[in-house]
Amino acid sequence: MAQPRFDVLGIGNAIVDVIIQTDDGFLSENNLLKGAMSLVDAETSAALYDKSGPAIEISGGSAGNTISCLASLGSNAAYVGKVFDDQLGHVFAHDIRSLGVHFATTPATEGPPTATCLVLVTKDAERTMQTFLGACVGLGPQDIDEDEIAAAAVTYMEGYLWDPEEAKAAFLKAADCAHAAGREVSLSLSDPFCVDRHRDEFRDLVANHVDILFANEDEIISLYQTNTFDEALQAVRGACKVAALTRGENGSVIVSGDEVHSVDAEPVDNVIDTTGAGDAYAAGFLHGYTAGQGFAVSARTGSICAAEMISHLGARAQVNLKDLVAEKISS
Amino acid sequence: MAQPRFDVLGIGNAIVDVIIQTDDGFLSENNLLKGAMSLVDAETSAALYDKSGPAIEISGGSAGNTISCLASLGSNAAYVGKVFDDQLGHVFAHDIRSLGVHFATTPATEGPPTATCLVLVTKDAERTMQTFLGACVGLGPQDIDEDEIAAAAVTYMEGYLWDPEEAKAAFLKAADCAHAAGREVSLSLSDPFCVDRHRDEFRDLVANHVDILFANEDEIISLYQTNTFDEALQAVRGACKVAALTRGENGSVIVSGDEVHSVDAEPVDNVIDTTGAGDAYAAGFLHGYTAGQGFAVSARTGSICAAEMISHLGARAQVNLKDLVAEKISS
Repeated sequence: MAQPRFDVLGIGNAIVDVIIQTDDGFLSENNLLKGAMSLVDAETSAALYDKSGPAIEISGGSAGNTISCLASLGSNAAYVGKVFDDQLGHVFAHDIRSLGVHFATTPATEGPPTATCLVLVTKDAERTMQTFLGACVGLGPQDIDEDEIAAAAVTYMEGYLWDPEEAKAAFLKAADCAHAAGREVSLSLSDPFCVDRHRDEFRDLVANHVDILFANEDEIISLYQTNTFDEALQAVRGACKVAALTRGENGSVIVSGDEVHSVDAEPVDNVIDTTGAGDAYAAGFLHGYTAGQGFAVSARTGSICAAEMISHLGARAQVNLKDLVAEKISS
Repeated sequence: MAQPRFDVLGIGNAIVDVIIQTDDGFLSENNLLKGAMSLVDAETSAALYDKSGPAIEISGGSAGNTISCLASLGSNAAYVGKVFDDQLGHVFAHDIRSLGVHFATTPATEGPPTATCLVLVTKDAERTMQTFLGACVGLGPQDIDEDEIAAAAVTYMEGYLWDPEEAKAAFLKAADCAHAAGREVSLSLSDPFCVDRHRDEFRDLVANHVDILFANEDEIISLYQTNTFDEALQAVRGACKVAALTRGENGSVIVSGDEVHSVDAEPVDNVIDTTGAGDAYAAGFLHGYTAGQGFAVSARTGSICAAEMISHLGARAQVNLKDLVAEKISS
């Protein structure tokens, strides 16, 4: 099998985050489900934005964040996602390409604008997200290039892809292409409410299409509808080759066949915004995994990346992650 | 004279900042003048952006920053500036209006897009700015509403307004309207290179049209082409009613007739990005000034706002400045 051109190719909803610092009162006044990602239409998004305070725009999107972190870690990375040919689409494309990521998906020139996510960050560093999918609804199987997929050691997809209808078909096509080329498929469950929307299909995916699964505690419990984390751990064990389960400040558990690792979270002085913590963990883990570094080092790398991400607003790294990880792991 | 509806009305180039963390090597490779604001055309801006790393978009513009800080301080504020009717124009308008600022300038629907400024921030927290003026070139006397100007205790303008040709006429019209209504006019010199571009006109402005002048050390030295700060101080003394001269970590000096104050800078643990320090100082000063708090308290308020601004990326406050100032001044 040819040496892969890309360590990881990510597929996701290409979104620009509109980050707004707010308080719990604003969330409850607007009936927003704290901590969740909710889908909203253009009008609802605009109405909420009009009521919100000043914002900061930073490229986002779950898999986009992961792929950006992978590039910052020094991995060869590629991304597939649909923006519109507008100013925010250019912002998204610039930010990911400027890290050296291969991003060749044709932008939409008809239909809705580039997707935006209103990320409402409260003082407890929790984020509540309202996503207008915009141009992401145009992502479909026609955007999956078999040669690109075959050129990636791991094809990584976000569970949020299951929300826009056409992206499901893109997801399954990509998974099939990857496996036909002898490559691996990875999935992040994204959000417990996303799992709730697509539980049966996600269980089938995990059992039949996914080699490396990422989920946090709430997501894996939602997937298997168990009462405890340990019950969910038993359920996922053996369902896919590797499961990396994150538990916030309680670290992460990795299960793969008979191998089990429990890795501490990296301490953080001042947690500002938890947006992108899981995305960054997945990046660190996949960086180590594709470099053959073993699960313990891979998970530690994930923890270091997640710690960097939650120490500032936004879900894109503000330092060079390769340097940061080298410094932390050697110390 | 009627009680003013607005404490301060600001007029400036309406710009969205594109903030990029970089290093000195990148500045020298691209022949960029460190610390300065340089004007570039659309092509030059796009070429530099393409070569730059990932960015964060935050509303900016010198007077826009000042007016946003004033609103955060609790002042009644208004803004005049020209965006295009595009995504970044909507971002700018949202961010300033969401603070309660009156912003009624008609956006352009023909011509260049909303202005952007590539703000290159180096590890020493210095910022180097490359501004594409875009829709700002469309700001002219037709955008100055005499009733709005007459309704503001102080009309504040940035020196950068002298760069787009039509804005000069807007500037002079606004100054005349303000004085005709018995109000005051304030000017910030903006940048030593901007002073260099327009020195003779700026000297005339300061002598004949400006009541309250803001300048940093480099700018006031450039205006009067003196060798020392003290020589420049003597030159400006008496030229206008109030001169507030900032000296970075060395604090500020305020001269007004026989009155002189020297006020310390507010200590900052970790300076991240000096963008907007002067804008924030002017906001704090004008907030105190229009509230009749005296020069010493006004300057202290300016120092507190400047310290908040340089402790993070971007030139818009990340905390409520009214609360911050109340806490600092009472402690």
